[in-house]
Amino acid sequence: MIREIKEHRSVRSYKADPVPEQILTEILAAGTRASNTGNMQLYSMVVTRDRDLRERLAPCHFNQPCVTQAPVLITFCADINRFSAWCRQRGAEPVYDNFAWFFNAATDALLASQNVALEAEAHGLGICYLGTAIYTAAQICRILQLPSGVIPVTAMVIGYPDGEPPLTDRLPLDGVVHYETYHDYSLQDIDLIWASKEASEETRQLLEANGLPNLARIFTERRYKAEDNLSISRSYLECIREQGFFNQ
Amino acid sequence: MIREIKEHRSVRSYKADPVPEQILTEILAAGTRASNTGNMQLYSMVVTRDRDLRERLAPCHFNQPCVTQAPVLITFCADINRFSAWCRQRGAEPVYDNFAWFFNAATDALLASQNVALEAEAHGLGICYLGTAIYTAAQICRILQLPSGVIPVTAMVIGYPDGEPPLTDRLPLDGVVHYETYHDYSLQDIDLIWASKEASEETRQLLEANGLPNLARIFTERRYKAEDNLSISRSYLECIREQGFFNQ
Repeated sequence: MIREIKEHRSVRSYKADPVPEQILTEILAAGTRASNTGNMQLYSMVVTRDRDLRERLAPCHFNQPCVTQAPVLITFCADINRFSAWCRQRGAEPVYDNFAWFFNAATDALLASQNVALEAEAHGLGICYLGTAIYTAAQICRILQLPSGVIPVTAMVIGYPDGEPPLTDRLPLDGVVHYETYHDYSLQDIDLIWASKEASEETRQLLEANGLPNLARIFTERRYKAEDNLSISRSYLECIREQGFFNQ
Repeated sequence: MIREIKEHRSVRSYKADPVPEQILTEILAAGTRASNTGNMQLYSMVVTRDRDLRERLAPCHFNQPCVTQAPVLITFCADINRFSAWCRQRGAEPVYDNFAWFFNAATDALLASQNVALEAEAHGLGICYLGTAIYTAAQICRILQLPSGVIPVTAMVIGYPDGEPPLTDRLPLDGVVHYETYHDYSLQDIDLIWASKEASEETRQLLEANGLPNLARIFTERRYKAEDNLSISRSYLECIREQGFFNQ
């Protein structure tokens, strides 16, 4: 397996060392080699290194320490602004301000982000995705001055790791792969797929610390709660609309 | 740069040779090593090798020949069905049937897909993303028997390349990267960013073949037209709703 894929882990502690300019350029260029919709490259990578700006962005990412500790924060944005501006400048009428193109552009941005992650790791750097980018997208739009047609879809910190966290576990491969068509899960399938995770020492400690009887309830009652899920759904959809992806 | 990232191209012609089982397993396992939301792995990879099924899926991908030519077709799906089933089985109440979790799950599926692409290439295979997966998502749901909580977000063919297509060009890196905050494009910026693409021999041939005065109009009047964009927006949003991602 490609070494960077096999060895990938999320790094949450960073040294202060900056990322050399030439390496950062190579990493960003790797992002652009990913497949993208019609070779239109409907994304922008906003690279924030300025400390004040990273401190202003930190609350958008729930003040996770890595946001200010790592020297580079990249906000990956779906971007139909640049392509549409080009069209208008050439007398062509762009009609990309709609949901299909939000999703195409988001796909372009996300595939680019995964290349960036792996290329960073190839240079001995660590990365951590910040899924919080969609929780607080409107605030990020204001701080990064994103115009209409541009919206964050994910973010990532990059820096030199301070220590090496262990690899995290995964569900058994046949728990996430279906052959030919989808085969829905039986009660036994579900038990088997989660058996190892549920039996782990890490889970035992989590249950004890949270006073809850099983791991599923840690997810639904602690990590990703109903009211938060619904509030993020509303605010991200509203941001997609505000940023001009539901004009048509 | 990681060789597979640097050498990535979309392959549209394939030899008939099958992908050995062990290699396919390694490729799929590479997909699962990508970062994902809360390590919940909210995706499923539906691997279709059966010829009849691939022929039934071909019209969903506008009958591009590679869909039946390549021996493996993977449909990457956002999947909250498996995780929610586990929660219910443990007496936890999952509230993931909403837009935020459609997007989290789509992100998980897309990052996994990019690992799959690169790992396939590391084994000498070629791949081509099929963005058509969102154009015809409802039909794909029926053919692949996707239950509520599961929806296609992209698809990919994998096989041994028949010939090596050239690398495609990209916009200059500073056309898609912004430092610190977003800096909107001036008229001159736009001209510069597209200058090389517009001056290419490929563009000259396209304009001649299409009888159009510039490349932007090839996109808006031939490749991605207003009525198609709006129709796909409506149908994909409707499919997201139908598959149970707007229940709450």
